[in-house]
Amino acid sequence: MQEHPTAVLLLSCPDRPGLVAAVAEFVFRHGGNILHAEQHTDTDEQIFFQRVEFALDGFTLARDEIPEAFAELVNRFGMRFQLRFSDDVARIAILMSRAPHCTYDLLARWRVGELRADIPIVISNHPDHADVAAHFGVAYHHLPVAPETKTEQERTMLALLAEHDVDLVVLARYMQILGPDFVASYPDAIVNIHHSFLPAFAGSRPYHQAHQRGVKIVGVTAHYVTAELDQGPIIDQDVVRVSHRDGVEDLVRKGRDLEKVVLARAVLAHLESRVLVYGNKTVVFG
Amino acid sequence: MQEHPTAVLLLSCPDRPGLVAAVAEFVFRHGGNILHAEQHTDTDEQIFFQRVEFALDGFTLARDEIPEAFAELVNRFGMRFQLRFSDDVARIAILMSRAPHCTYDLLARWRVGELRADIPIVISNHPDHADVAAHFGVAYHHLPVAPETKTEQERTMLALLAEHDVDLVVLARYMQILGPDFVASYPDAIVNIHHSFLPAFAGSRPYHQAHQRGVKIVGVTAHYVTAELDQGPIIDQDVVRVSHRDGVEDLVRKGRDLEKVVLARAVLAHLESRVLVYGNKTVVFG
Amino acid sequence: MQEHPTAVLLLSCPDRPGLVAAVAEFVFRHGGNILHAEQHTDTDEQIFFQRVEFALDGFTLARDEIPEAFAELVNRFGMRFQLRFSDDVARIAILMSRAPHCTYDLLARWRVGELRADIPIVISNHPDHADVAAHFGVAYHHLPVAPETKTEQERTMLALLAEHDVDLVVLARYMQILGPDFVASYPDAIVNIHHSFLPAFAGSRPYHQAHQRGVKIVGVTAHYVTAELDQGPIIDQDVVRVSHRDGVEDLVRKGRDLEKVVLARAVLAHLESRVLVYGNKTVVFG
Amino acid sequence: MQEHPTAVLLLSCPDRPGLVAAVAEFVFRHGGNILHAEQHTDTDEQIFFQRVEFALDGFTLARDEIPEAFAELVNRFGMRFQLRFSDDVARIAILMSRAPHCTYDLLARWRVGELRADIPIVISNHPDHADVAAHFGVAYHHLPVAPETKTEQERTMLALLAEHDVDLVVLARYMQILGPDFVASYPDAIVNIHHSFLPAFAGSRPYHQAHQRGVKIVGVTAHYVTAELDQGPIIDQDVVRVSHRDGVEDLVRKGRDLEKVVLARAVLAHLESRVLVYGNKTVVFG
Repeated sequence: MQEHPTAVLLLSCPDRPGLVAAVAEFVFRHGGNILHAEQHTDTDEQIFFQRVEFALDGFTLARDEIPEAFAELVNRFGMRFQLRFSDDVARIAILMSRAPHCTYDLLARWRVGELRADIPIVISNHPDHADVAAHFGVAYHHLPVAPETKTEQERTMLALLAEHDVDLVVLARYMQILGPDFVASYPDAIVNIHHSFLPAFAGSRPYHQAHQRGVKIVGVTAHYVTAELDQGPIIDQDVVRVSHRDGVEDLVRKGRDLEKVVLARAVLAHLESRVLVYGNKTVVFG
Repeated sequence: MQEHPTAVLLLSCPDRPGLVAAVAEFVFRHGGNILHAEQHTDTDEQIFFQRVEFALDGFTLARDEIPEAFAELVNRFGMRFQLRFSDDVARIAILMSRAPHCTYDLLARWRVGELRADIPIVISNHPDHADVAAHFGVAYHHLPVAPETKTEQERTMLALLAEHDVDLVVLARYMQILGPDFVASYPDAIVNIHHSFLPAFAGSRPYHQAHQRGVKIVGVTAHYVTAELDQGPIIDQDVVRVSHRDGVEDLVRKGRDLEKVVLARAVLAHLESRVLVYGNKTVVFG
Repeated sequence: MQEHPTAVLLLSCPDRPGLVAAVAEFVFRHGGNILHAEQHTDTDEQIFFQRVEFALDGFTLARDEIPEAFAELVNRFGMRFQLRFSDDVARIAILMSRAPHCTYDLLARWRVGELRADIPIVISNHPDHADVAAHFGVAYHHLPVAPETKTEQERTMLALLAEHDVDLVVLARYMQILGPDFVASYPDAIVNIHHSFLPAFAGSRPYHQAHQRGVKIVGVTAHYVTAELDQGPIIDQDVVRVSHRDGVEDLVRKGRDLEKVVLARAVLAHLESRVLVYGNKTVVFG
Repeated sequence: MQEHPTAVLLLSCPDRPGLVAAVAEFVFRHGGNILHAEQHTDTDEQIFFQRVEFALDGFTLARDEIPEAFAELVNRFGMRFQLRFSDDVARIAILMSRAPHCTYDLLARWRVGELRADIPIVISNHPDHADVAAHFGVAYHHLPVAPETKTEQERTMLALLAEHDVDLVVLARYMQILGPDFVASYPDAIVNIHHSFLPAFAGSRPYHQAHQRGVKIVGVTAHYVTAELDQGPIIDQDVVRVSHRDGVEDLVRKGRDLEKVVLARAVLAHLESRVLVYGNKTVVFG
């Protein structure tokens, strides 16, 4: 249990004077101290975004009373909002295929306490890495996918995720394309790592495509999964320099290091309620 | 003249509940709309920092009435604050020596409208670059410095800066160490670019030192000048990868590109009132 | 005049044992000392590439005797080769439009001696920057382009380039698409800076496209110009991190810094005979 | 077993004409094809360095005949040289303390085949991570260190390393300072990851030092261990941007990602015989 838990309000609404004052006054009136507040206004679309984190020590409302008390502002400003608490423990499912590097990386981060989450389950379309999950004390489900079994297997997956009460699905180099039903079940809650600097080299074998084009830098992209392949809102990206000396296998190797780090950064941002999706973009607070 | 000028409040004070609400309420009460607000709390030192930018369109106080109206908050919370307006035009003096790259870069940025400032004067201890200043329509003063004339020349410089009503002194690879009187005349208003990744390689010939040590990355540091050489608050830093193939002259060449960019970024942050100095550190808002 | 001039052999041919030995033996036999040698083998295509730089001090062949003496190896191995000397002074034409930042940057680098080249001419489809060229002592030709005059103007340009004996054409944010005749006149000798991380956001208004897609990093690409727009061999790329706070104009501003540096790096690599084009790729030696 | 093994010659000697030719001729005379060759001349010190990799397929000398055949060149040019084969399998010992992230990272890389090496043993001064070693099938030795037992424990360690036939010792955030006898037993064969951008912040608690100084970038350094603490030849470095928002624990977290990647890159460079140490510097071939 955290010693000094905090509450995080993530909100968006049409921009209007008085918003910042109203939210800050709400927190202050109920005895909260704002520890972090960040806001952004999309001036083209006239949308206001804010993340406000305040101490629960001394806050006079019980956690479950906050939404009702906040409702007045929600209505006045036409807000969409999420409320989370720093001691919430999200439940993550990892989906993986043959390459285990992202899975190892996430599980090792979890073990050292870097991720405030539980990881009850790893699902893979390959049987290879059951021992990895076992080492970290996580259930491993092998669900092989073939064209004719895909719909069925995704239904099984959804049942497993429900059973394990999963909030966030992390595609740790899961090489199957998820169907629309699956994607619709976890809106803004499936994070994928694509091994290219999107929108360059969407689709399959991006390192081959990059090598073919002779680029001097390769990148990776963490994004939320939407119905359209590799087109979801981007959470984070990073790149590494390559040269003519690097063959495809070198790009793959260099890319792996990026994939691990960028996927982990995206998962962390999600877990800390720092990401707001709007349209096909994200606001990622610092 | 800007079409929609804004006001920027930069403030710091001991952390306390109600700060954000009080400032936002102040702006709202007088008809302002907050466009950007960023805050930071140094939890070790319990100091609160904030940058609030609000539209002056519709604001009911005249610019010169703001400080008095804000005084109540200043007293209540023990604030230090600065108030600036987006259409303020700072006046910059550039000090340079032999290498003209940073001066060219700043003047070219100014010409294309990247810097909201006037640059009325360039001062150099070398006569070489009078034509550069002339090309940009800037006065050029050649003030050679020798050990026995240094105090005298710095007095002359201060007189020139006063005459030109200078707010910000930019050391664009000015290779003389400024005396304490000069430094004290422009607190937090002299920006230097040091050609190393401080605190590594302080002092003279940092690229030689870096080459000698065999580092694989070199950097540069933009900082405010204080009485102690190369020890002032850091505003920005950046680095570039080098290898065994790079001789000292390659480090110098690669470093020049960093020096230009990092100095310009620091000057821009200063001009946009995004930098708050406290102790020997800075808060640089985004 | 350089004190210790060197010769550079840039060669490519089908890979075969004995190549490195034969070239090194050739240099040694005629009294040369190899100062740098770098090679690369494209193992997919089985092509060998090499850059060999050797001291001319003590070399027993006169410069104009080298090609004939080297012909035996060229024939034996089926080589394509170029021979250049470190004291060759390439002649560069800069083509620009409204934005002067890349032109200023290149001319300032030239003035401080960073580029071993002459820059006799700047051509622009806008009249705005004649004074910039004049400041650096360079001729400025204003050649406005309209759809109906384009072919004619390109012919005029080619005549000007011929008159000034130009070896390398640098498109320093020149916003006109060059016709096939123009491009064909300078094979692998027109360097363009495209303001996106190609192949992402080819075509017009790449910063708008990037902002629209919500990327977290933007980049720029220096490449040789070929008949197909933005598809030529990439020489260098670089990127900078952006966030939701950055509007299009911030992307433009951040991008400018990249454009200057990456274009200059590509020009330098070309001038130092470090670039070999093959197919649609480049080998860029270090 | 590799299908097409190669030999790597790593050599250095006083610079002299004919070196490249002589080495290339040696390889060619015995039927080898040079696949990669890179050279460097330190022009200040007049030392020549070269890494030559050639195919063993068709090479007419047996592996153990190469040194004797090469001896003539070694004598003629006063060379120091190492000969390695691409199918050599180095034996690595990992030393660790409390933080397991680098150890996990190295062992996971090893499992997916990224490191051509065996890792027979992990030694730690803490008992915590025996299960990690066990998961990867590696022996784990817990050797707690106290001031009075240190010499004795290092002797035990050396015995263990000898017993496991270890070639390379990797300090994966091992927080004990190794004594001179230990260091002397593995010259240029102990790789450490220091969690600062050396030479800045040598010694203990570098992230605290960095936070105290208010730097805007933190880094890490992989280097060979020598008798003098944190002063050994640097193999690789990398950095990450930080801001005023990052407390010490954020620097620690961001640093961990760098530590893993930079340590792994340094180990890989060592294993591929791409590192040459001279004086207190390294040549790291690409």
